[in-house]
Amino acid sequence: MPKKSTNTVWHQAAVTRADRETLHKHKSAILWFTGLSGSGKSTLAHAVEDYLHKLGVSTFVLDGDNIRHGLCSDLGFSDHDRVENIRRVGELAKLMTEAGIITLTAFISPFKSDRDIARNRVPAGDFLEIYCQCPVETCEQRDVKGLYKKARAGEIPFFTGISSPYEAPEHPELVVNTQDQTLDESIQAIVKLLIQQGIIKAPT
Amino acid sequence: MPKKSTNTVWHQAAVTRADRETLHKHKSAILWFTGLSGSGKSTLAHAVEDYLHKLGVSTFVLDGDNIRHGLCSDLGFSDHDRVENIRRVGELAKLMTEAGIITLTAFISPFKSDRDIARNRVPAGDFLEIYCQCPVETCEQRDVKGLYKKARAGEIPFFTGISSPYEAPEHPELVVNTQDQTLDESIQAIVKLLIQQGIIKAPT
Repeated sequence: MPKKSTNTVWHQAAVTRADRETLHKHKSAILWFTGLSGSGKSTLAHAVEDYLHKLGVSTFVLDGDNIRHGLCSDLGFSDHDRVENIRRVGELAKLMTEAGIITLTAFISPFKSDRDIARNRVPAGDFLEIYCQCPVETCEQRDVKGLYKKARAGEIPFFTGISSPYEAPEHPELVVNTQDQTLDESIQAIVKLLIQQGIIKAPT
Repeated sequence: MPKKSTNTVWHQAAVTRADRETLHKHKSAILWFTGLSGSGKSTLAHAVEDYLHKLGVSTFVLDGDNIRHGLCSDLGFSDHDRVENIRRVGELAKLMTEAGIITLTAFISPFKSDRDIARNRVPAGDFLEIYCQCPVETCEQRDVKGLYKKARAGEIPFFTGISSPYEAPEHPELVVNTQDQTLDESIQAIVKLLIQQGIIKAPT
């Protein structure tokens, strides 16, 4: 993405990310959920948020629904617009991380290159890629939003898993098998990762 | 702005804004600083953030500099791009407000219509417009970034106050006279406003 901006200089904020992390009593990070439509990304992200909030952690979930109606309401579903959508989510998550928040993003984000753009915008260790692994057959069977039916009817072009590829993460920080694991098992695996990474303290 | 998005539905987050405000022990809001280049918006926003942070308030400053290098790095300075820049800042501030943060934005944002778009995206009372009032002659004399000099030399087209209009707010929540008031007086006026609006509690 070309940097067109000129005439701007960096301000050093008096209050730093580290200051905000101290205030919130935990470190900030991005939990980037990726997986097919219906693989449970949004459900899991909200469930993890709920768990963390009860521990006193400052959190926020970004998902296709609340982003598409606001920040990205000017974007459609062309190749360019899908890339730009994920780019903006990455930038937004970066700013929220600087604000001292654990940000959970729940987007299909099917392409490795797009996820890597978001990963590379933040310091190593800030970006935790969580692959919600689930066979497309199961996702299609769930079809919570009725999108697979529409995709099969040809009403949605380039639908991930049907008419457009999903590039599974090669080295995700965590794989959650949302077909076989219970929601609670999945939550616990993510919380364990956060404790191991020193992002939150183990609940006492 | 047309809403191109389809195939999306709203998720009801289990954790609400009110929950996050309870956790942070204050309400969230947007402090939207507007004024000429050199009127002190960014300096004041960071100083207010510093003051609030020391009171234990969760804060974040968005300014032309950190936004232009990231979320809006694809935008230039055409009329369309300037409008889109401010629109995205408004959406970002909205999301940060939902995340329970007091967000301070420091952009010239010279046009009433652009500021009103941001204002109208959030519930009444969330958007506090703070007009950093300062004569253009004083701003030009300060010329911290050397931009007025460049504008006078014709190197920056449509420079607010020189070759492009600034539409002063008609009903801002607060006017700060950054020519005559000290920085501390300006900070105190803003803190007083936040207490009056019930956003933060009076420091004890």
